[in-house]
Amino acid sequence: MKLTILGSSSALPTSERYPSAHVLNVHEHLFLIDCGEGTQMQLRKCRIRFGKINNIFISHLHGDHVFGLYGLLSTFNLMGRTVPLSLFAPASYMAKLSSHLHDFDINLNFQIDFHPLAGKEPVQIFENKHMTVTSFPLKHRIEAFGFLFREKPAERNIIRERIEELGISVAQIRAIKKGSDFVAADGRLIKNSDLTLDPEPPLSYAYCSDTAYFRGLAGVVRNVDLLYHEATFATNMKELARQTGHSTAADAAKTARAASAGTLIIGHFSARYRDIDPLVEEARTIFPSTIPALDGFTYDIAELARRIK
Amino acid sequence: MKLTILGSSSALPTSERYPSAHVLNVHEHLFLIDCGEGTQMQLRKCRIRFGKINNIFISHLHGDHVFGLYGLLSTFNLMGRTVPLSLFAPASYMAKLSSHLHDFDINLNFQIDFHPLAGKEPVQIFENKHMTVTSFPLKHRIEAFGFLFREKPAERNIIRERIEELGISVAQIRAIKKGSDFVAADGRLIKNSDLTLDPEPPLSYAYCSDTAYFRGLAGVVRNVDLLYHEATFATNMKELARQTGHSTAADAAKTARAASAGTLIIGHFSARYRDIDPLVEEARTIFPSTIPALDGFTYDIAELARRIK
Repeated sequence: MKLTILGSSSALPTSERYPSAHVLNVHEHLFLIDCGEGTQMQLRKCRIRFGKINNIFISHLHGDHVFGLYGLLSTFNLMGRTVPLSLFAPASYMAKLSSHLHDFDINLNFQIDFHPLAGKEPVQIFENKHMTVTSFPLKHRIEAFGFLFREKPAERNIIRERIEELGISVAQIRAIKKGSDFVAADGRLIKNSDLTLDPEPPLSYAYCSDTAYFRGLAGVVRNVDLLYHEATFATNMKELARQTGHSTAADAAKTARAASAGTLIIGHFSARYRDIDPLVEEARTIFPSTIPALDGFTYDIAELARRIK
Repeated sequence: MKLTILGSSSALPTSERYPSAHVLNVHEHLFLIDCGEGTQMQLRKCRIRFGKINNIFISHLHGDHVFGLYGLLSTFNLMGRTVPLSLFAPASYMAKLSSHLHDFDINLNFQIDFHPLAGKEPVQIFENKHMTVTSFPLKHRIEAFGFLFREKPAERNIIRERIEELGISVAQIRAIKKGSDFVAADGRLIKNSDLTLDPEPPLSYAYCSDTAYFRGLAGVVRNVDLLYHEATFATNMKELARQTGHSTAADAAKTARAASAGTLIIGHFSARYRDIDPLVEEARTIFPSTIPALDGFTYDIAELARRIK
């Protein structure tokens, strides 16, 4: 699992920070989370292959999280995409998107499979061989959703030497990887723990933006390896944070601490902070394993998880 | 008159080239011409002051010329703009823009004065103390317009020493600057040419994108100091240019030559050209004073005009 930050600004981009967009790479499947203006240019700069993006998640319908989607869809089209695209977004978005594409005479050559987000409870919205995605409500001025990406536990790693040594068949290998013991030709029972090694522990990533602080959030993202939480403001602007449905760096850190997160990555910085170090420092006083989201940087979640241990 | 290129790509941006957007500075009034995705970030990078943009011109309703406008308008709003904004665009655009802003709950604190572009003839659409702007039809897959920005002739420069020497009043100075002769206290007639120096010649800039080649265009932009003409393709792709309503570099150069333009600046380059030198070379064989549009660069039109002479 690797996370690339395409944009870490809040509504007003700066010359250093673009509006919100993240790319999560899980076993070479790319998940685009939010799609602020300029996402396609940032994808190019980061040399991320457009064709590997088959799932896009939109947290809420504020422009700084969506306005890059029109250009990206047009580009998919011009590049000859025919593979369907799954789009997860608040329920009202599909009609808005369709009408806007129609206004600009954009006829997509590929299908959009739209998955409306709704509800007040966490809901699993995606599953493949490797992972699941759960959406959950945030607390913003308008309906907004966070996303939790969880790897499934990997199969156990079989010790290669044992395969030849004991004459294990392909079908038996499959069972052993899932945890079975093995009965040898001579009738001996060999325990799974003598045949396999522990796999890498499954990793997880949660995206929480935009949101005001609320106590219930920590429970939803409990034990996540990497928690992205918006930190639009420092604590001295907490009134503005409250009014606008945003969080301070301290709010983000409190949620990370209550959730026993591995690492906290903060972003969605207000344009007023040219230097974001004070925001990181503020969060670290509450939750030391805090790092800032930096445009164009890729974070290896396995590596971050190892460092924590 | 100075021109800043914010984006020189065609529909598919690259890591080096953003979609179309130009800023023309005429006596510190900024005119934004087209507004592709990422325009506001490019404005920041070029340190151009948002508050000086009061007029936006949209050539046609393809996304790579418009999709930056939503973000830019939102940003104007967040920055507290109250000054009205004049928007010149194809007639159908205002309804599309309004519906899109409505979809995203964007209530602008400033007024948009919409000026629909239409018709088959050049029309003057703007005038201030310093200049005029004329729109004219291009030849593209959909309705598209070019823009001609022309400075008015400046007043004559009065020779300071003469004012004291001859006791010229403020009212008389004003008349002399406009070309009047002067009658001295002793009745002598002093010719204007003995009182003044020639002003800088008025400059002009034309924006022609997107368009296929057509013979009539040269007449509309005759003698322009700087001609921006799209050159999406090289001549070996002229069939594709024709099919898509675009020009080759040679097409752009032919129009520049027929128009007796001062300098030709080509842009709107297809993403297939990582290196645009061949396009510039192709144009120069027909029109030697050709330069490429480069993102983030500013071109001093007075300086270019002086070099030509």
